[in-house]
Amino acid sequence: MAHIQVPEGIPGIRSLVMYRPDTGQHLYALAQALLRNESPLSEAERELIATFVSSLNDCHFCAGSHAAAARFLLGKDKELVDQVIADYQTAPVSDKMKALLTIAKHVQQDARTVSEELVADARQHGATDRDIHDTVLIAATFCLFNRYVDGLASLTPTDPAAYEAMGERMGTLGYVMPKPVV
Amino acid sequence: MAHIQVPEGIPGIRSLVMYRPDTGQHLYALAQALLRNESPLSEAERELIATFVSSLNDCHFCAGSHAAAARFLLGKDKELVDQVIADYQTAPVSDKMKALLTIAKHVQQDARTVSEELVADARQHGATDRDIHDTVLIAATFCLFNRYVDGLASLTPTDPAAYEAMGERMGTLGYVMPKPVV
Repeated sequence: MAHIQVPEGIPGIRSLVMYRPDTGQHLYALAQALLRNESPLSEAERELIATFVSSLNDCHFCAGSHAAAARFLLGKDKELVDQVIADYQTAPVSDKMKALLTIAKHVQQDARTVSEELVADARQHGATDRDIHDTVLIAATFCLFNRYVDGLASLTPTDPAAYEAMGERMGTLGYVMPKPVV
Repeated sequence: MAHIQVPEGIPGIRSLVMYRPDTGQHLYALAQALLRNESPLSEAERELIATFVSSLNDCHFCAGSHAAAARFLLGKDKELVDQVIADYQTAPVSDKMKALLTIAKHVQQDARTVSEELVADARQHGATDRDIHDTVLIAATFCLFNRYVDGLASLTPTDPAAYEAMGERMGTLGYVMPKPVV
């Protein structure tokens, strides 16, 4: 049970933004802009970074739902998601993506350790300012979302089908504020 | 120097939201809603939680600027800020505030460790659902802001007068998106 009285049966961050919509609306708008607006990173790549960081933070709700969104967006390449979570260094992703995931890992652990060397390595593999910016902001944002969801012990479904449905919604509709319970 | 090309001479998160305003606007709107909209926690208490978490994350820019905002809002009690940073358990704050700062510390370190016992302890000292919610979301949000600012190595002023001016602005105008450089 969640630490505070949120709408019953609503999972994860949805229950929290319904509890306090005046802050929640900005969290959803941020997710939509960051993960769906124009970026040199594809929507699937951005969902992969979100999943990877959530997995490092052991946030089962965010890791599960964003993994499902990444799988939905990747289509036939959906196995990539588990490969990246298991070991991104050996996963079949580009060297640029590996360098960006390394930066994301440093942001998650201690952002002060994102060194000039790590940034230079990403650039050498083709990363631009926007790739680097978006990677850092996605990693930082999921350090917020993961803590919000787990710090208030919000509902974390255990049924894989629940995540698959969320992934399809996130991959098609994006991040839309849930309507208040009346 | 920052890891990416942001407007020169602009410190911290301001330079980053000017670099990408379509995400930045939501970060500023979140800060304004969370730290300035109605809450059972005073503006000074919320700035204290923001300062405390930024200090735990060793983010000099955020800790310095929000400490200055807290001092501005506290007026004659401004010494409280350094006392909370040094050791909140012996600082002259209420037992409710101490229990909330303990929750904030757990959110910063590993949000899954915010236990029923910690929440019950806060309630015993008068904390409501909204106190607990707002504390967790402030702590989580500063885990984002701190990582964004330090992960991109944004400009961190060293002159204390620069922070005092920021604190006065944050305490009077609140969080208003900076205008783009033309």
